[in-house]
Amino acid sequence: MPSISQKGLKMPESPIRKLVPFAEIASKKGKSIYHLNIGQPDIKTPEVALKAVANSNLTTIEYSRSEGSEEYRTKIAKYYSKHDIHVKHDDIIVTTGGSEALLFAFGSIMDTDDEVIIPEPFYANYNGFSTASGVTIVPVISKIENNFALPAIEEFEKLITPKTKAILICNPGNPTGYLYSKEEIKKLATIVKKHDLFLVADEVYREFAYDGIKHHSILADFGLEKHAIVIDSVSKRYSMCGARIGCLVSKNKEVISTALKFAQARLSPPTLAQIASEAALDTPQSYFDEVKEEYVKRRNTLIEELQKIDGVKVAKPKGAFYCIVELPVKNSDHFAKWLLESFEVDGKTIMVAPAAGFYSTPNVGLNQIRIAYVLKEESLIDAISILKEALKVYKD
Amino acid sequence: MPSISQKGLKMPESPIRKLVPFAEIASKKGKSIYHLNIGQPDIKTPEVALKAVANSNLTTIEYSRSEGSEEYRTKIAKYYSKHDIHVKHDDIIVTTGGSEALLFAFGSIMDTDDEVIIPEPFYANYNGFSTASGVTIVPVISKIENNFALPAIEEFEKLITPKTKAILICNPGNPTGYLYSKEEIKKLATIVKKHDLFLVADEVYREFAYDGIKHHSILADFGLEKHAIVIDSVSKRYSMCGARIGCLVSKNKEVISTALKFAQARLSPPTLAQIASEAALDTPQSYFDEVKEEYVKRRNTLIEELQKIDGVKVAKPKGAFYCIVELPVKNSDHFAKWLLESFEVDGKTIMVAPAAGFYSTPNVGLNQIRIAYVLKEESLIDAISILKEALKVYKD
Repeated sequence: MPSISQKGLKMPESPIRKLVPFAEIASKKGKSIYHLNIGQPDIKTPEVALKAVANSNLTTIEYSRSEGSEEYRTKIAKYYSKHDIHVKHDDIIVTTGGSEALLFAFGSIMDTDDEVIIPEPFYANYNGFSTASGVTIVPVISKIENNFALPAIEEFEKLITPKTKAILICNPGNPTGYLYSKEEIKKLATIVKKHDLFLVADEVYREFAYDGIKHHSILADFGLEKHAIVIDSVSKRYSMCGARIGCLVSKNKEVISTALKFAQARLSPPTLAQIASEAALDTPQSYFDEVKEEYVKRRNTLIEELQKIDGVKVAKPKGAFYCIVELPVKNSDHFAKWLLESFEVDGKTIMVAPAAGFYSTPNVGLNQIRIAYVLKEESLIDAISILKEALKVYKD
Repeated sequence: MPSISQKGLKMPESPIRKLVPFAEIASKKGKSIYHLNIGQPDIKTPEVALKAVANSNLTTIEYSRSEGSEEYRTKIAKYYSKHDIHVKHDDIIVTTGGSEALLFAFGSIMDTDDEVIIPEPFYANYNGFSTASGVTIVPVISKIENNFALPAIEEFEKLITPKTKAILICNPGNPTGYLYSKEEIKKLATIVKKHDLFLVADEVYREFAYDGIKHHSILADFGLEKHAIVIDSVSKRYSMCGARIGCLVSKNKEVISTALKFAQARLSPPTLAQIASEAALDTPQSYFDEVKEEYVKRRNTLIEELQKIDGVKVAKPKGAFYCIVELPVKNSDHFAKWLLESFEVDGKTIMVAPAAGFYSTPNVGLNQIRIAYVLKEESLIDAISILKEALKVYKD
């Protein structure tokens, strides 16, 4: 019998996915579950995007250009100019979600066994992309005590080897909700220039910056023309996760021409979703204002409710819609399963993401979970009261 | 300045793409171009698919399951049962086009420097996928004199090394139009079982089998449950290349569970296109009958016209909508450029795909081109008359 590859065996299972069978059993038993575990917002997609698809009048769903249509890329460039990012349409390659943008970036700048330094905890799928690309993640630990701020530059420098090709950040951060300051981006700029590294920033939550704090793109005025690669996506911005449209942006022409070869091999990003995404760029500012207000309310409520629970520690997120919560438990993986299998309040329980899957250092974050505040306020209040009751009776 | 990866440098440029700048200049000069170079059919997408998207009434474009919705996969399994392929929904992973299915297959069964044997000429993007996956293509030459039939089994066996993990075929073939017989699939079945290899078949042109000849899937009754991986796509079947929906099908549970991990890392196939693809499964048989009739007419006309030209050799395709044509020229790459730059008949010229890009053995196929017969009959007749005139005056 032919055998699976070593790479395939090493591919990590999603830390959230592992709990799905337990959730399915709980649902079958009639339990209702608050999903705090995934970043699928309940927010509506802008009507302008949905209407553009419904009214497209296509008669043949044809390939688009491998790099995305020129019209759409020109409109993206215009959108960026409002965010202090000054690029042209040919600095942009439209991809199948931020996921593919990251795969193209990894493929364009790293070979087998090359290393990328990532502050952890980080978005769990970076593990999958690095395994698929044959590259190694070197984590640098950021701490809940510091709100997951950027680790000291010396901590990065300690980890740089001849195999280090890039530093990857997610800003604002999934799963931390941390928003890097201008000073922090400057520090990263200094180090990547000093060591000839790429700086890759996953900025898919750009709009989700709260408390009047400004988001700073690595493509803004940091002098990173040769170094910066931005990963972007329409998924969260317009609540159209299923569209699968993102982009890779860089002013480094070699990066773009290389990524384009990966793009050409897979022919085209999805055409229908590109229609939706292009139209979504006309979404009125009021949509974002409302969405932001909603998330800030949810965040404030969530943090307030969590702080009422003894032994719970939480870093107040300044962006995105996640937070890492430290619980008075030894093993949150076990706790998350137990919540689905053995606990309920009035027929309801909660599903959370154990945080260990967001770290690549073993045995770190074992007492942490990630909560996505993608539910309405009243649901969040109920969900956190269930967490509170659960912690009273749970023994590990 | 940070540097591009070796992998990125090695990524091949699409052989068709290289000609695009010359075509753009020709267009700007007012020349009209018959595109014989690409597989973008002019056929309409079935209305049932377009309507399903227009009337979907989605309010949020959400993620679907990473492996595709159960409803859609169940309907795909039913479709397969009509083609002698008996699989269940959980033998199927929905992918972003056949491209991603192939990437998942390569990742699941091959590690860096592993080898896959492919009869050449082959679909040029296999080169890109193998470079991206870090694996090596070992070509086995099939010949125009034999209509590109399967090379003798001994030719395959000569090439098998400890690093060989799979044989990949495209059936019916792009760029050859060759349709493998039952006997040929049996021979492949014997060799992959003997040497514990996977057999990967790109069957995206399944419906495009002509002259009453039956298509034989490797998942039909060949006893390849552990060995067979089928790559599929809606792109050509329903003329919806831009949808970017395909699937990977295997009865080998380890292959499916491994490919699923790659699928989870990228979260979800495109949701809008899945709606179109699911609806497309209800396309009436009359649609395919008409499309097939149209392609057979085009093929017959094309071959007839080509055979009228002195010094032109062509293998009559039995499937798909491509054929390889041998021309009385030394270098078809140069000839293709010349057609765009320096030749016209009544303001018109043709764009063809030089066939060298479909071979991985150097200096083979230099006098061949690939023609995609995706244009209406009268356009094909005019296009081939232009080719005839061009060959009269071209000197290389």
